[in-house]
Amino acid sequence: MINKNINNLIKELSSLDISGMTRKDFLLTWEQSDDAVSAVFKTAEILRLLRRENISPRIFDSGLAVSVFRDNSTRTRFSYASAANLLGLTVQDLDEKKSQIAHGETVRETSCMISFLTEAIGIRDDMYIGEGHRYMKEVADSLDQDFEAGLLPSRPAMVNLQCDLDHPTQSMADMLHLINHFGGVENLKGKKIVMSWAYSPSYGKPLSVPQGVISLMSRFGMDVTLAHPPGYSLVPEVLDKADMFCRQSGAVFTRTESMEQAFEGADIVYPKSWAPFSVMQKRTELLKDGDSAGLVQLEKDCLRQNAEYMNWECTEELMKKTRNGSALYMHCLPADITDVSCSHGEVAASVFDRYRKLTYEEAGYKPYIIAAMILLAKLKDPASSLNSIIKRAPKRKIF
Amino acid sequence: MINKNINNLIKELSSLDISGMTRKDFLLTWEQSDDAVSAVFKTAEILRLLRRENISPRIFDSGLAVSVFRDNSTRTRFSYASAANLLGLTVQDLDEKKSQIAHGETVRETSCMISFLTEAIGIRDDMYIGEGHRYMKEVADSLDQDFEAGLLPSRPAMVNLQCDLDHPTQSMADMLHLINHFGGVENLKGKKIVMSWAYSPSYGKPLSVPQGVISLMSRFGMDVTLAHPPGYSLVPEVLDKADMFCRQSGAVFTRTESMEQAFEGADIVYPKSWAPFSVMQKRTELLKDGDSAGLVQLEKDCLRQNAEYMNWECTEELMKKTRNGSALYMHCLPADITDVSCSHGEVAASVFDRYRKLTYEEAGYKPYIIAAMILLAKLKDPASSLNSIIKRAPKRKIF
Amino acid sequence: MINKNINNLIKELSSLDISGMTRKDFLLTWEQSDDAVSAVFKTAEILRLLRRENISPRIFDSGLAVSVFRDNSTRTRFSYASAANLLGLTVQDLDEKKSQIAHGETVRETSCMISFLTEAIGIRDDMYIGEGHRYMKEVADSLDQDFEAGLLPSRPAMVNLQCDLDHPTQSMADMLHLINHFGGVENLKGKKIVMSWAYSPSYGKPLSVPQGVISLMSRFGMDVTLAHPPGYSLVPEVLDKADMFCRQSGAVFTRTESMEQAFEGADIVYPKSWAPFSVMQKRTELLKDGDSAGLVQLEKDCLRQNAEYMNWECTEELMKKTRNGSALYMHCLPADITDVSCSHGEVAASVFDRYRKLTYEEAGYKPYIIAAMILLAKLKDPASSLNSIIKRAPKRKIF
Repeated sequence: MINKNINNLIKELSSLDISGMTRKDFLLTWEQSDDAVSAVFKTAEILRLLRRENISPRIFDSGLAVSVFRDNSTRTRFSYASAANLLGLTVQDLDEKKSQIAHGETVRETSCMISFLTEAIGIRDDMYIGEGHRYMKEVADSLDQDFEAGLLPSRPAMVNLQCDLDHPTQSMADMLHLINHFGGVENLKGKKIVMSWAYSPSYGKPLSVPQGVISLMSRFGMDVTLAHPPGYSLVPEVLDKADMFCRQSGAVFTRTESMEQAFEGADIVYPKSWAPFSVMQKRTELLKDGDSAGLVQLEKDCLRQNAEYMNWECTEELMKKTRNGSALYMHCLPADITDVSCSHGEVAASVFDRYRKLTYEEAGYKPYIIAAMILLAKLKDPASSLNSIIKRAPKRKIF
Repeated sequence: MINKNINNLIKELSSLDISGMTRKDFLLTWEQSDDAVSAVFKTAEILRLLRRENISPRIFDSGLAVSVFRDNSTRTRFSYASAANLLGLTVQDLDEKKSQIAHGETVRETSCMISFLTEAIGIRDDMYIGEGHRYMKEVADSLDQDFEAGLLPSRPAMVNLQCDLDHPTQSMADMLHLINHFGGVENLKGKKIVMSWAYSPSYGKPLSVPQGVISLMSRFGMDVTLAHPPGYSLVPEVLDKADMFCRQSGAVFTRTESMEQAFEGADIVYPKSWAPFSVMQKRTELLKDGDSAGLVQLEKDCLRQNAEYMNWECTEELMKKTRNGSALYMHCLPADITDVSCSHGEVAASVFDRYRKLTYEEAGYKPYIIAAMILLAKLKDPASSLNSIIKRAPKRKIF
Repeated sequence: MINKNINNLIKELSSLDISGMTRKDFLLTWEQSDDAVSAVFKTAEILRLLRRENISPRIFDSGLAVSVFRDNSTRTRFSYASAANLLGLTVQDLDEKKSQIAHGETVRETSCMISFLTEAIGIRDDMYIGEGHRYMKEVADSLDQDFEAGLLPSRPAMVNLQCDLDHPTQSMADMLHLINHFGGVENLKGKKIVMSWAYSPSYGKPLSVPQGVISLMSRFGMDVTLAHPPGYSLVPEVLDKADMFCRQSGAVFTRTESMEQAFEGADIVYPKSWAPFSVMQKRTELLKDGDSAGLVQLEKDCLRQNAEYMNWECTEELMKKTRNGSALYMHCLPADITDVSCSHGEVAASVFDRYRKLTYEEAGYKPYIIAAMILLAKLKDPASSLNSIIKRAPKRKIF
């Protein structure tokens, strides 16, 4: 007998209005309807439970899943590979250094050339403010054009594996972790979640994780507090989204420049480093101008600026200020752990150790979130297809 | 009901004499019989139509398809990956930098070591005159020896992904595009096709595209005109083939040093840059001698020589000289487009834009051409196997 | 009708006590029971024969097989890819340069992050004495922890693709070659096998091949002779194992500093270069200290030391000293062949040529050995699963 939860989840999925998801991309969570967001959670959870039941949710006999990584990645790369593989697709990496893109090929052309037998394209492009999302939109528009022109037999599903604005596969995995950890989305209402900047000796970490977190978590009735030192604000348009979503869901969006104050009574804390917005902007300009001396100087300045806020660390003392001293600690990993990965970092070793297992659990949702995004873009009636899969019950591990 | 064309194509395929294709390689089109060439077109078209019918032409449950890229590649890499995947094979790249080949391993040994469970080997080796094809032959001979000696359980099908002499997956895709564009190979008789050199600011482009085009297109009764400035001739043996094929098919092979004259009354134009033959020869020698100063000087000389022929551009004015001013423009992509990818290039932006969709269509045949080449080398009776596939009709997209 | 040998081998497999293999790793052969070693040979041979019968031994519909190569590799890389593919898994390479490991991620964390949908992890880490095996153990322990904590839905099977101590996929392939070549393991009793150092102009070759060979071959009643110049000894713990296994199996473990003496009356010779133990130890220290000048000097010293033993070459004269002048020559490849890959090497060209086919045959066992290791770690009752596969007889090449 199949796990009852799976059947219930499929029923819930079938009641959502997700007609707008087919052949569409899930690039920024704030552009998605509540039903679309919810459909991803439910589908991801179904896929995760099917894995435990040893049922293979393969929906393709063949097809490519292209990946384009313009920045380093371990867990997102493996999550994407796992998701593609689970659905029956084979990853083909577009290594821009080994390609002919240097020849002066346009985005439109490359998109088409890699897509003749492609079902999904995952892109990480998170280095430059104003760039990553713009590039993904350009690829998406090209794919639409070429699909409509009959050049592509199917419209590849685009997956945003992190851009300058959002990191939806991360924030959605974080959120599904919260839903399961607290026993249902309804239990999150009124909880206080803190997205806090934290000190790290490294430079230039993207803003997309905190942006993804505050703009998504604000949709579920949680009070969202954003804390960072002066100068470490986020892209204004995303702040507006968080504010708006909080108001819509009857919650409060708070901003503070004190980590201590933020942690006060928190149910969930997410302490993580990111680069100052102005530094990211200046960096984009310097990179465009090829000004390497300027970049070296900027890195120095930024690290000096960071160093002023070394006390922004998630310590045991700070954790004590949270609700019952036992807020849920979250991180997208890898965390900069004091005395482990560096001498001063985002989090004390004892805090991280206590929550290590939970952060790994959090990370473990990502492959299913990505698979859900692809599946929902690809299937016209996902609920009924999932029902067919369960009926047939093809084994993932055959023997 | 299956598309009627598919059944007709399979019938036509079954009437061809392709007994010589099994376990044989398709390295140079001019070594292949007319029936073999025709079988590739028909099989590629069948595979393309099956894709539209959502039928999976998987012929392997497992097996590797090795790729060896000794030069950069985007579309050929993705075409090969797509073709392998469509047939059920998994691409494994032989990255010669990460391998032990530097240890002094022989070609014979490497070929065997990568082939124990391999069904196809695709190689791009197009940089040096006198090298690429020689290398592929050496690999092919090694595979034959090791298969005959019982060391390999099957003889991998070799795919020439571009050598110094020919670029058969490109020229065959180009030709299938022509066949479909003009409504059948019979409609190509008497048409005038122009393979013309065109200016590009880049250096050292291989000769294999123009060589592949003139030696293949000349087999179908088309009048082939080869146009280039003085010094930009091609490998003599291939010129002879083009001439011979034209004579055999009752057509005319014309050579000219005027792009204008070439375009006069043309039905199809293929303007593309390539390096002067003598430069490619000298380059090979300098590379062998490790003469880096000589290489720098050669590049300078070559670019200076190119710059004398900046007016070899496919402009609107030139296009007007073609039949009814509307010849079909072709390119293997990426094209050097004036004011888009460079200030002076092979083609005017407005011309390229008008034909952009058609060049993408042209490129879209390549995965199927490659899959057809592998399939024909692997199956003893391809027509009857394709009939079995159609009968079973396994779904490519399962849900 | 299925090959009778397959049924017999499955029967033999079912009689072995391999209950300890499920979810366990095969990192060092000397830690494995005789039954476990025997089970790998039998399973590998079954898989090899199934390949000839065109039966697909796929045991997974999906799943990743991660590879981590900390040293160059051709044949092991392809063997691992082939094995994974044969069982239905898709290789995903962990390229540590493209990952976030530089961020200060721990081994525990990386192991978990790459394993959420992973069924096998193959690692090559053979550069530093005291490092490779330690690292693999750390990964293995992490995987155990995370599997037990419920973070991983299955425990990935680890495959040692060469460490500082052992190279089990190589030595097991070598041994299966011997078993088949001499018509059964029972025919090896009393045979004399010589593992001899041989001169090579290259530097820093790992000790794991000779260590793997002497510690494995000593288990089957063969007299094992280890020959090397002064200073080229192996890791003491492995020497002890070889000595102990020889005594247990009633054979003799002999050490000599004369290649000539070693070859006298030998049935099998395995002449191969490796680095002096002390050099490998010093190298590890220098690398840790980042002492590049020291490393350059060490390489010079080592090559000078090597050069004193240029006469350690497997020549025709030496081969004449073996039993009937026709001992079986073995090598893990690539060999340094005099006048082929270098001016003075491990073996004379005429000797290597005579045995070339057999060395390729030897190499051809590796994919099946790796597949067997994964299969035995993954299946609770491998014999009965293999029987089910044979009953169903799914085709590997479908058409």
